[in-house]
Amino acid sequence: MIESICQRAKTAARSLALVSTADKNAALLRVADQLWAGREAILAANGQDVDAAQAAGMGPALLDRLMLNEKRLAGIVTDLRQVVDLPDPVGEVFEAQDLPNGLRLRKQRVPLGVLAVIYEARPNVTVDVAGLALKSGNCAVLRGGSETIRSNRALAAAIRQGLESGGQDGRGVPTDAVQLISDPDRARVLELLQMDRYVDMVIPRGGAGLHEFCRQNSRIPVITGGIGICHLFVDETADLERSIEVIRNAKIQRPSVCNALDTALVHAAVANRFLPRLIERLAADGVTFRADERACALLGGQAGPEVQAAGPHDFDTEWLALILGLKVVDGLEEAVAHIAAHSTAHSDGILTGDARSAAQFVAAVDSAAVYVNASTRFTDGSQLGLGAEVAISTQRLHARGPMGLRELTTFKWV
Amino acid sequence: MIESICQRAKTAARSLALVSTADKNAALLRVADQLWAGREAILAANGQDVDAAQAAGMGPALLDRLMLNEKRLAGIVTDLRQVVDLPDPVGEVFEAQDLPNGLRLRKQRVPLGVLAVIYEARPNVTVDVAGLALKSGNCAVLRGGSETIRSNRALAAAIRQGLESGGQDGRGVPTDAVQLISDPDRARVLELLQMDRYVDMVIPRGGAGLHEFCRQNSRIPVITGGIGICHLFVDETADLERSIEVIRNAKIQRPSVCNALDTALVHAAVANRFLPRLIERLAADGVTFRADERACALLGGQAGPEVQAAGPHDFDTEWLALILGLKVVDGLEEAVAHIAAHSTAHSDGILTGDARSAAQFVAAVDSAAVYVNASTRFTDGSQLGLGAEVAISTQRLHARGPMGLRELTTFKWV
Repeated sequence: MIESICQRAKTAARSLALVSTADKNAALLRVADQLWAGREAILAANGQDVDAAQAAGMGPALLDRLMLNEKRLAGIVTDLRQVVDLPDPVGEVFEAQDLPNGLRLRKQRVPLGVLAVIYEARPNVTVDVAGLALKSGNCAVLRGGSETIRSNRALAAAIRQGLESGGQDGRGVPTDAVQLISDPDRARVLELLQMDRYVDMVIPRGGAGLHEFCRQNSRIPVITGGIGICHLFVDETADLERSIEVIRNAKIQRPSVCNALDTALVHAAVANRFLPRLIERLAADGVTFRADERACALLGGQAGPEVQAAGPHDFDTEWLALILGLKVVDGLEEAVAHIAAHSTAHSDGILTGDARSAAQFVAAVDSAAVYVNASTRFTDGSQLGLGAEVAISTQRLHARGPMGLRELTTFKWV
Repeated sequence: MIESICQRAKTAARSLALVSTADKNAALLRVADQLWAGREAILAANGQDVDAAQAAGMGPALLDRLMLNEKRLAGIVTDLRQVVDLPDPVGEVFEAQDLPNGLRLRKQRVPLGVLAVIYEARPNVTVDVAGLALKSGNCAVLRGGSETIRSNRALAAAIRQGLESGGQDGRGVPTDAVQLISDPDRARVLELLQMDRYVDMVIPRGGAGLHEFCRQNSRIPVITGGIGICHLFVDETADLERSIEVIRNAKIQRPSVCNALDTALVHAAVANRFLPRLIERLAADGVTFRADERACALLGGQAGPEVQAAGPHDFDTEWLALILGLKVVDGLEEAVAHIAAHSTAHSDGILTGDARSAAQFVAAVDSAAVYVNASTRFTDGSQLGLGAEVAISTQRLHARGPMGLRELTTFKWV
């Protein structure tokens, strides 16, 4: 079954690659209309998923991620309509040159082909990924979590109805451009990962376990990412008031995401002035702290119950919660060494008033995004000007950081 | 052992990434000097490899690939010196922009980190890869074939002596930037493919079996490629005289390489005029032909012993020899369909006088390189203006076609 799904996707990809931008945009709008027209069925299916998850004892945070309502669905549909306005990367010609050997050479962007996306919990991923895949001329094979299976079936059915309604006159988007694997058996994931004849890229979106499973078992290139142990280093020349606000933004704006701050490294020369003020400000937002020995010693009796001594694994933990690691360092070199040892190469930054320190930090820290006087929260497709993102890559090949439409393409030499 | 090699490579990669272009170039020149100074030991080691291979019954073509002499070694050293003149991609800033959210954003090229290259036969790969890796700021872990183990040991020793002679004052290239796995046990390759903590990219250079093995067993991203079933389609509007010369170049210039032509597809409207002339011209160079039914019927009694009827697998064979497949097609659509079914997406082209047919072919054929009125032999790093290449990728992620220095880098968002 998986093989025939992937084979159909590959066939559809050949014709989808030739569909014009206007026809792809028309298809996206039809899909958006169909999702909205079918909202009753979608929300009913989602209600069944929520009931079943509740009965199975799912916690409130996960239930909230799973749950759709009319407002959330309207948001998903609006996001899909916005994909229409993004520039189509396919066909873009770049690095055109006439060579001494007489060749007139150019590179031309083409879709990757077939994307397999394996995800957990959030049903909005079904629509987001389908939209970005279509716009970039790629076919999507989707595999959501078993806890959202009814929602995903309803969403995928609406998407495919939207595609079908455009007619199959050969110019439109083929219906098989979006397919959902609706068999919840996990063995299907393993099968999917063997389909390197048909599938060009696998994007896992979920926890570390899912990424590890894909890396271990896939014959298809896997884009891993989405796991961020993020650092900000407060240099001795930093504007301390501003640094507190940047750290606060990075920590509390949305603590459950991968670009949220995990550890603040503070230069010893400013630590005794800076740490108490930082703690006071963030404690008011409900943040608790895991401080290293030097920070603890420095805070001494001042520290309230919100500050605990850091345990052995605390600096290797992605908190995804209102918890912040604190460590005092002797200077830039120690900060860089700590980041090299503990970062997941997602997003790390320096807060400094000294251009030389900034340059040294940027050169030495090799993360997908390196910031100077800015929050790690900027690592996001729309913040970095990509419009939207399918994933945030922390690997080094093909794409690094937020992946937008262009990262779903490759090129050919002409 | 493999783990400690890879770990040392990762550590060396951190410092190599910060070495200046001038210091990397100086190191390359020292390595070139050392290779030439050590030529006696290298050629003696190679002589032992050749003797052992001969005793084991290796055929003359493979023996020739294995064999070094002073002239060949001089060529290898010259190629290495030329890497000094190639532009250093590391540090290049691109897509700089100021965003509405206040971010001043740029992308900056950085080395990939650690490259593992697994190869067969040719000892020159040891030097070529080491040179390109160093120039692009990457560490190389090399695993040659057991038949060249003595040559590779001698070459790697000279390379490392060249690096060491620069002193380890912290500014130079670390010696561990180039390491050879000199244990010939194949189990080491399997171990190497598990080292995703330290190694960023695996490049297999060898036959289909090696590529398949890496794809199946690697936890590290693998660049596959180097296998080309290449096509040229002679359209009805093609300049027939010129087409014969292009096909001749693509077939006979160097038949044993991946960008050599495997199949000529000929439009039915010109086949009876074109095929006899093509066959006559190429038969004089020793080419033999595998013709499909229509071509056979068309040639009828005219065909000499150099034309055989094509067998069932002939159009799925990379010849690597003076053999050419011939097929008559009704037009562009049939040609494109044949290429979609039989090409390895390496290099395919159209010979035509009609700009519309050219555009249609370029849009419909999705190979790494698509040619109009040019030979498939141009798919080569130096022909396409890259200076040199480490491999030719036929996969879609990260790099397609010839991979030069830039394809050995990634970037970070700053």
